[in-house]
Amino acid sequence: MNTSRTLRYAQEHRRRFVSELEEFLRFASVSSEPQRAGDSKACAHWLARHLKQAGLEQVKVMRTAGNPVVCGASRQRRERPTILIYGHYDVLPGGPRAEWRTAPFAPLRQAERLFARGASDDKGQLFTHVKAIESFLKTARDLPVNVKCLFEGEEEIGSPNLTSFIVRNRRALRSDAAVISDTRMLSADRPAISYAQRGGLRATVEIRGPSQDLHSGNFGGAVHNPIQVLCELIARLHDEHGRVSIPGFYDDVRTWSQGERDLMARTGRTDVEILKDAKVARGFGESGFSAYERTTIRPALTLNGMTGGHQGRGAKSIIPSRASAKLSFRLVPDQDPRNIAQLFRDHIERITPPTVQSMVRTFSPIEPAMIDRRHPALRTAEIAYERGFGTKPVFIRSGGSIPVVNTFQKLLRVPVVLMGFGLPEDNIHAPNESLYLPNFYKGIATSIWFLSLATKLPIGSGKVQQASSRAL
Amino acid sequence: MNTSRTLRYAQEHRRRFVSELEEFLRFASVSSEPQRAGDSKACAHWLARHLKQAGLEQVKVMRTAGNPVVCGASRQRRERPTILIYGHYDVLPGGPRAEWRTAPFAPLRQAERLFARGASDDKGQLFTHVKAIESFLKTARDLPVNVKCLFEGEEEIGSPNLTSFIVRNRRALRSDAAVISDTRMLSADRPAISYAQRGGLRATVEIRGPSQDLHSGNFGGAVHNPIQVLCELIARLHDEHGRVSIPGFYDDVRTWSQGERDLMARTGRTDVEILKDAKVARGFGESGFSAYERTTIRPALTLNGMTGGHQGRGAKSIIPSRASAKLSFRLVPDQDPRNIAQLFRDHIERITPPTVQSMVRTFSPIEPAMIDRRHPALRTAEIAYERGFGTKPVFIRSGGSIPVVNTFQKLLRVPVVLMGFGLPEDNIHAPNESLYLPNFYKGIATSIWFLSLATKLPIGSGKVQQASSRAL
Repeated sequence: MNTSRTLRYAQEHRRRFVSELEEFLRFASVSSEPQRAGDSKACAHWLARHLKQAGLEQVKVMRTAGNPVVCGASRQRRERPTILIYGHYDVLPGGPRAEWRTAPFAPLRQAERLFARGASDDKGQLFTHVKAIESFLKTARDLPVNVKCLFEGEEEIGSPNLTSFIVRNRRALRSDAAVISDTRMLSADRPAISYAQRGGLRATVEIRGPSQDLHSGNFGGAVHNPIQVLCELIARLHDEHGRVSIPGFYDDVRTWSQGERDLMARTGRTDVEILKDAKVARGFGESGFSAYERTTIRPALTLNGMTGGHQGRGAKSIIPSRASAKLSFRLVPDQDPRNIAQLFRDHIERITPPTVQSMVRTFSPIEPAMIDRRHPALRTAEIAYERGFGTKPVFIRSGGSIPVVNTFQKLLRVPVVLMGFGLPEDNIHAPNESLYLPNFYKGIATSIWFLSLATKLPIGSGKVQQASSRAL
Repeated sequence: MNTSRTLRYAQEHRRRFVSELEEFLRFASVSSEPQRAGDSKACAHWLARHLKQAGLEQVKVMRTAGNPVVCGASRQRRERPTILIYGHYDVLPGGPRAEWRTAPFAPLRQAERLFARGASDDKGQLFTHVKAIESFLKTARDLPVNVKCLFEGEEEIGSPNLTSFIVRNRRALRSDAAVISDTRMLSADRPAISYAQRGGLRATVEIRGPSQDLHSGNFGGAVHNPIQVLCELIARLHDEHGRVSIPGFYDDVRTWSQGERDLMARTGRTDVEILKDAKVARGFGESGFSAYERTTIRPALTLNGMTGGHQGRGAKSIIPSRASAKLSFRLVPDQDPRNIAQLFRDHIERITPPTVQSMVRTFSPIEPAMIDRRHPALRTAEIAYERGFGTKPVFIRSGGSIPVVNTFQKLLRVPVVLMGFGLPEDNIHAPNESLYLPNFYKGIATSIWFLSLATKLPIGSGKVQQASSRAL
C-alpha cells in the first residue's frame, strides 16, 4: 500500500477536512444535559453518514439506554491485525456563556486555531482517524489493517452505558490494539503517549435543614444554616496543607520508586509549565510532590460546583432550607473507587451535626489504569508520531480519566494506545476551547503512519499486555 | 365621630377588601430584581388610585432613584395630632418556584388564608390601614386625626432611597407618631407590639482563582479550588458552638439586666414555639441564651446564598474559576454596622490564602433600634389592640429590621408603633406566604380604634420619645 499517496491525499484535502469538522462541531451534543438528547442523536447520525461517505462499510448507529454509539468497520481479513479506534462525539456544556468570545457551537477559525466546544475534546481528535481512514479508502480502496470504529456519546458523563454495550458486542469488537486520541501532548513540538491515567468517582452532598426557607431576621441565631453546615463539612475534607483528610483515603495509594519519579521529572511538565497552563500564579496541594506528580500519581478531591439559597442578583434575607455540592475524586493505583465511596460516605455521616440531614450520592466509579509502555502497539505509535510530527514522543501520565481504557483492557484484553493530539492551551472543559489545526493535520498523518505500520503487530496480542500490566 | 359605624362599614365590606387586596398582590413588585421595576411602578400607581378611591386627598406617586414612593394625606387640621402610616408595597422574589403550591403572584384563597407573595409582608398588613381610612372617609367623611401615608417600594432591599426622600420631605412628613404594620404577633390570640428590632448589614464575598474554569483531571491536586477556599473561609466565621468568630464582633454587644431578661422570658415565645415556627427539630446557636434571646438581643451572621462552578443537573469535571456567597448580619445595641463591616473585611482579608483573591462588598447598614414602651402612642396602641383583638398585647422584641424605624426616630423624631398583624405561620420570605384573614379583619378594626383613640395624643410628642429612648 502506498502510504505517500495516502498522505498526499490528506495534505491536499485538509481545507475540506476542517470545513467538515466545523459541521461536526455545530451539534450541541452535550451529554450532561438530558434536554440535548436530540442534538446528540442528530450528531451520531451525521457522524455515521460521514463515515459512510469516507468509504467505511458496516456503519451503524446503535441504540443504548442513553446516547447512541456509532460503529463502523472496514472489510475484515483474518490474516491482518485489527485496530479498534475509540472516540467520543459528546461534549461538555458551553458555559459560562459570557466568557466565550464566540458562541460555543458556532465554530470560528482564527489564525491556526478552530474555536468551538469539542474542537479538541474530542471531536477534533476523533476526526483525525476518520480522515486517515478516508485518505486510505479514497486512494487505495482498502486499509493496511482491519479497522473498527467505536464512537460513543456519553464519555463526559462517565460512559454509563458503554460497558454493557461492549459486553453485548464483545465478539464484534475483538481486536489486537485500541487507539484513543483524547489526551494531550506536552506542547506543539513535544508529542506524548499517555501510559497511565487516574481513576475517578463523582459525588454529590446535599444538606437539608428547615423544610423551607426561613426569614433570617426571625430565625437567624436560632437555627442551623445548611450553607454554613455544608461549608463546614467541605472545610473538613482537606487539611491545611491540601491533603485530603478523609480517614483511610491514602491507605491504598501506591508508592513509586525513585527511578519512576526520576523518569517523570525528566519527561513530564515542570511546575512552572503546569501553572502557566492553568494561568495561575501559585500552585496549591500536597507537599513533597511536584505539580506533575500531584496531578498523576497522587489522588485529588475537587469541588466542581456548589449551590444554596438565593442566587443571582440582589439580596434575600433567608436561612435557606438546603444547600448542595458536586465533587469528584481523582484516584490512583491502588485505590478502589468503591472503597473510596464508602470512606467518603462514612466520613460525611460521622461529621454531619445532628441539626441537619446529609444526603450523599456517589456515582461514576472509574478505576485507575496503567498501560505497558513496552507493548509493540505502543512502540508502533512511537514511530508513527516520529514520522507525523518529526520528533519522538515521550511517555507521560495523564491526570484525567477516559473510562473506556479500563473497559478495553479488562473486557477486550487489548492494549490501549493513548495517541493524544490535544495541547495544554486548548482550553478543554473551559470557555473558548479550540483545536490547534497544525496538530489536526499532523494527527491525521500520524494516524496514517500508525495504520500503515500496524500491519506488523502480533495478532491476538491482548494477552501479552494483560500479563505485564501489573508489573509496571 | 361614630367609631361603631366605621367598624360596621369595615365589617360589611370585608369581602370586597379581600378582593381588592388580591388585585394588589397580583403585581410582582419585586424590588431585588431590577427587571421588575415596571411591575413596581405599576403597583405604585395602582395603590395611589386605590387611596384616591378610598377618599384620601393629596395622593401622589413620587419619584426616587429607585422605585417610587406613594404618598397620601387627609385634610390636615392644626389642632389634631398627626399619624404617619408607613408600609411597603415591594416584595421578595417568588422562588423557589417549585416549592409553591400556587403561583406566587396569583393569589389563592383557601379556608381562612390568602396565599401570595406579599400577602403578609407587607401588602396585606399595609392594606389594613388603607381600609381603616376608607371606612372612616366613607362613613364620616373625615378622620379623627390627621393622617399621612408613606408607602415605599424598596424595603426588602434595605430602603436605599428612603432616607434621602424623608430628608427632602421632612416638613411634609411632620407628625406626632408613626405606625408600621410589618411585624408579627405571637399567635392569633396573642397580639404583640415590637419595641426593639435588630440592625443589619449585608455582604458578599467572592473568591477568584484561575482566570477560567480548569479541567479537574489535568489540574486537580495542583491548583487551589475557589469553592474549597470559600467554604474554608465561611467555616471560619463561626466557632463550633455557633458563636461568630470574627475578632471584636461581640465587643459592643449590650448586656441586659436580669430584670429585662426575665420580662423577655415571660412575654416572648419559648424555644419550643420558635422551633415549631421554624419547623425544625433542633435549634442551634450561642449557648447560654434562649432562642428568643438569640434572635433579638444577640447578633447573628446568616449565609443567604452561595454559588460556584457547575449548577443544576449533570456533572462537569472542573475546578471553577470563582465562587461567591451572600450573607447578612443581624446586629444588636450597641453594635455599629459600619464598624462590623470593617471587622468583617479585615477578617476575610486576614484569612484569605495567597493562592486566590477575595473580594468583599458590604452594604445596607441598619442600626439596631429601641422604642420607648411607655410612650403614650404605644399605650394607645395597647388599648386599640385590646378592642380589635379582645386581648391585651404583649411587648416583644423583633429579630428583623425595618430600616425606616431608625429614620423616623432620628429624622422625624417621632415614636414608632410597630403594630404587627402577621403570624409566625405566615411563611414570610418563604414559599407559600399567606395572610390569616381573621387577622386582616381584626387589624382593620385595630387601626380604626387606634385612629379614634389617637385624638388624645400629645401634639409634638416626638421629642418625648427621643429623650427617653436611650434610658430603656
